Amino acid sequence: MRQNPQRRAALLDAAIEVLAREGSRGLTLRAVDKEAGVPVGTTTNYFADRSQLLVEILHRTRERLTPDPADLAGPLDTAVLLGRLLERMRRERSVHIAMLELRLEATRRPELQRELSGFQGAELEANIAWHLEQGLPGDRRGVVLLYLAMLGLIVDDLTVPELLEPHSPEALIETMVERLLPQDAPD
Amino acid sequence: MRQNPQRRAALLDAAIEVLAREGSRGLTLRAVDKEAGVPVGTTTNYFADRSQLLVEILHRTRERLTPDPADLAGPLDTAVLLGRLLERMRRERSVHIAMLELRLEATRRPELQRELSGFQGAELEANIAWHLEQGLPGDRRGVVLLYLAMLGLIVDDLTVPELLEPHSPEALIETMVERLLPQDAPD
Repeated sequence: MRQNPQRRAALLDAAIEVLAREGSRGLTLRAVDKEAGVPVGTTTNYFADRSQLLVEILHRTRERLTPDPADLAGPLDTAVLLGRLLERMRRERSVHIAMLELRLEATRRPELQRELSGFQGAELEANIAWHLEQGLPGDRRGVVLLYLAMLGLIVDDLTVPELLEPHSPEALIETMVERLLPQDAPD
Repeated sequence: MRQNPQRRAALLDAAIEVLAREGSRGLTLRAVDKEAGVPVGTTTNYFADRSQLLVEILHRTRERLTPDPADLAGPLDTAVLLGRLLERMRRERSVHIAMLELRLEATRRPELQRELSGFQGAELEANIAWHLEQGLPGDRRGVVLLYLAMLGLIVDDLTVPELLEPHSPEALIETMVERLLPQDAPD
């Protein structure tokens, strides 16, 4: 397997675009070569097979979605942070659509589902731990519920953006934080 | 176009299974014939093209997911109703996976996105109106947030079911109702 990390990242980014545009059945090693504008066979030199490619895409989405230090700057306010998460999602639609494609592919591939469960579970636990360490309002269960409500909001904003317009996604984020993370929650 | 309604429903149910199992790119009129066990060309006699099939699948999913009268019987309790919705989702996984496939397909087909937005918007408005008419606790915004949190929970339960196990989906539903639909909410 080839190891040039920049080339590998560029191939994974090309794979994310193919996944978002064509769906999981359109994702072939050949389609990634084409999207990346590299000679046929290049992707095969970096990934043993399609399964390995899927798992590496998953990890690449996390790199692409890690908040910029600037997103975490300033006084900590959960609603402000989630508003930035929504803005970032709108700038990185392909990454989020690719993640939804991976979720659906995971319903058909047990090995991808194990990887995805471990990956998302670790991320959720890290979010809970970070939230509690910062001494922000709310308890463990509130953070899990906030994660679910934001997941629902992101799925709708990606796939049926008109639906939430009359309700204002920004206003919904403010109210979900107020209600799900009460000041006096137990824990 | 042929009009036998039972045959049409059976073809749409076959299409839902194909969509759930193979993804949207696997959904061809020919694959539906095969899944339904009918002669090649039957599906073409019922649906002008793949676009029409996609829109009719959308409407069929609503028929499949309309609550049984038994699900609405007994004293009205939002957490109990949502618990039944989760049980029903687990019995009708293919329908929900097919719906997620349609959502992703809608990101690529503006005409399907318009149809899906109208469809989901009408459903959300009907849920809000029903909730308020019944005099259940909570306000309009609370019902929208509950819809989003349940959408997130259903997406996770379908695609990474292990993730929420330690948090207990049933307990999460109880707490989301308590917090998102406060007794003294405005409206």
